[in-house]
Amino acid sequence: MNKILGTFTRVLQNRRTAFFLFRTTTVNRENHFRSMSAVRTPSVTPVLMGTPISKEELGNFMAAFPGIVKDLTDNGVKLDAPDVTKWFENVLRYNVPGGKNNRALTLVQSFKTLSSPSILTDENLKLSYILGWCVEILQAYQLVLDDVMDNSITRRGHLCWFRQKDIGLIAVNDALLLEQAIYQLLKKHFKDKPYYKHILELFYDVKMKSAMGQCLDMLIAKSFKHKKLEKYTMDNYTAIVKYKTAYYSFFLPVCLAMHMTNTNDQDIFRQSKAILLEIGQLFQVQDDFLDCYGDPEVTGKIGTDIEDGKCTWLAVVALQKINSEQKKIMEDNYGIDNPANVAVIKDLYEQLKLPNAFQLYEEDIYKLINTRIQNLSQGLLQDMFFKFLEKIYKRTF
Amino acid sequence: MNKILGTFTRVLQNRRTAFFLFRTTTVNRENHFRSMSAVRTPSVTPVLMGTPISKEELGNFMAAFPGIVKDLTDNGVKLDAPDVTKWFENVLRYNVPGGKNNRALTLVQSFKTLSSPSILTDENLKLSYILGWCVEILQAYQLVLDDVMDNSITRRGHLCWFRQKDIGLIAVNDALLLEQAIYQLLKKHFKDKPYYKHILELFYDVKMKSAMGQCLDMLIAKSFKHKKLEKYTMDNYTAIVKYKTAYYSFFLPVCLAMHMTNTNDQDIFRQSKAILLEIGQLFQVQDDFLDCYGDPEVTGKIGTDIEDGKCTWLAVVALQKINSEQKKIMEDNYGIDNPANVAVIKDLYEQLKLPNAFQLYEEDIYKLINTRIQNLSQGLLQDMFFKFLEKIYKRTF
Repeated sequence: MNKILGTFTRVLQNRRTAFFLFRTTTVNRENHFRSMSAVRTPSVTPVLMGTPISKEELGNFMAAFPGIVKDLTDNGVKLDAPDVTKWFENVLRYNVPGGKNNRALTLVQSFKTLSSPSILTDENLKLSYILGWCVEILQAYQLVLDDVMDNSITRRGHLCWFRQKDIGLIAVNDALLLEQAIYQLLKKHFKDKPYYKHILELFYDVKMKSAMGQCLDMLIAKSFKHKKLEKYTMDNYTAIVKYKTAYYSFFLPVCLAMHMTNTNDQDIFRQSKAILLEIGQLFQVQDDFLDCYGDPEVTGKIGTDIEDGKCTWLAVVALQKINSEQKKIMEDNYGIDNPANVAVIKDLYEQLKLPNAFQLYEEDIYKLINTRIQNLSQGLLQDMFFKFLEKIYKRTF
Repeated sequence: MNKILGTFTRVLQNRRTAFFLFRTTTVNRENHFRSMSAVRTPSVTPVLMGTPISKEELGNFMAAFPGIVKDLTDNGVKLDAPDVTKWFENVLRYNVPGGKNNRALTLVQSFKTLSSPSILTDENLKLSYILGWCVEILQAYQLVLDDVMDNSITRRGHLCWFRQKDIGLIAVNDALLLEQAIYQLLKKHFKDKPYYKHILELFYDVKMKSAMGQCLDMLIAKSFKHKKLEKYTMDNYTAIVKYKTAYYSFFLPVCLAMHMTNTNDQDIFRQSKAILLEIGQLFQVQDDFLDCYGDPEVTGKIGTDIEDGKCTWLAVVALQKINSEQKKIMEDNYGIDNPANVAVIKDLYEQLKLPNAFQLYEEDIYKLINTRIQNLSQGLLQDMFFKFLEKIYKRTF
């Protein structure tokens, strides 16, 4: 008991006093200090989202980035502070590209799927790239701040922005510049579109949801100190995943594409949202499962959720199934960065037959989402969602 | 030279490694560690803005706050995460009220001044309170983040939010919740107003400007290490004051009131903006002057700009006037928290006749702003701006 408390206290202290101590020895492990952070950003690959992207399409999308930088540092903002312009350009170039651009590419692909020929013009396709970059800037803004709050080491294979020489907490303000960049781009390119107001509201609604998810995530992490695993409930897990990840990773890109293609039926929006949030949930549960049971050769990463004390689907389901004696074992061994303790937890998971529980969950949620998609009255969306679902069902990476 | 470098290095180190070390011995001095931060938020009192507020009006405005909290935690956001709701309520109550509400009250007063009888309804007056609270929430959001970035101790007589027990860097996410609260309130109360899009864009634009000002402020602070006082130029000073302070303190409240009262003439907007930014500049220059030469009995505060190494109007003008020998004196003594060094700088300011230079500046800018106001074609605005200007000209507190 004291041991685990000590570990978490240490980690919390690390987060604070060692805020600027760079730990080069652990630089190869992303988010090493992100103990108890409940849900990671899923690594959504385009192919998993059912939207295979051609090299040409990816190239076209990437080719739009210099124009985005120009908009924001030249025409878009009309800065009369050249030092800021130069700085902002660095912030953009370091933090915005370099990811897999999955959310943006899902948006572009959804736009192409849902467009009638009259809407699928070169001009609108370019607008979909710009909107895609807005989603990537949103992602960059969130990652820069998450890294500060989590005291992370690396991001996308590079040192986190706040850890760059002479940056530190200026990174917080840099994130605000990134955030405002979204609205500058929307104003410049979408001001006269009938859906302008809708996409503005969508961005700030989704940002509110993400901040709520982050808040809940951190409140649960904080609660461990006093309440142990009491807050690791399915309700909390579901809420965190939905708010922190599913909204901006799954709902936002598709919903933006729907606005661009004038899909204005409120019922369709509501049903699509429910489906996309469910798919997001399934994806995150799979991610949690693969973190423990996936083959690192296939997934490309070594899971650390148990030692990091994360509020994962496995931990939550384990807590639903255990007796008081097993609960004590879990409290004494969970969240400790030591192979022996991790082995105890993995053994407990086996005793509780969690792999089997996961398979049942996956089948059930698959059927549920299938039914929801079948009930959709919009054919193009139906096809697209079925493809999304088929691609992620039973995935092993 | 080494001495001053050592001091600034120490301060920078303090900012970083001592991020969470509470310095109770200096808790009575706000922003003690905010060395080299160029421009402080001016303490704009309503009477200084030419808009005396009755106790009744202030009471009415304050009475609207519980409704704001309710909107955001009950109807407005429709949270299904009760822990977040409770947390967010605490964030709002701790950080939003408690200031002098000058920006909000300027908005309310401007709204009343500019309204025709048909617009000045009880319902619209209530809307002006809500918009006023949005401005105060914007202020709270910026202050919470500024305090984190500046490693401040106290704010409005209390410990800064991030220094509260168990808060720390969660404060960054709490600031994002505050920021999003603005848009939730705007959506709930202004969605159907013809000026909805305009006030959304105004908030985005002003936030962008503030982030740019903050960026420039920090870049100049950073530059001292390598370039000494080289970046302490009038151009930089003017840009920081304009972006970091004048836009959201002076332009935003009045411009929001103009939107509410359907003042849609783009020329009037442009001219008003120029006037308000000039008034903001004058106000900040006065603030800098009073920090050094004001009577603490009258101003209510003891100035620390010199020891904090701030890029003030006095420092910038001094640098314009000095010879190379005096420059060396300034480089060796500026920004050191020691009465002897401060005395050297004050003596230098006297040699350079800065009080006289300030009086000339104040007279010139007063004449310039007067002319600008006279050129305005809108009578109500003209009266209001003249009142603003008269109230702040030659102020001593």
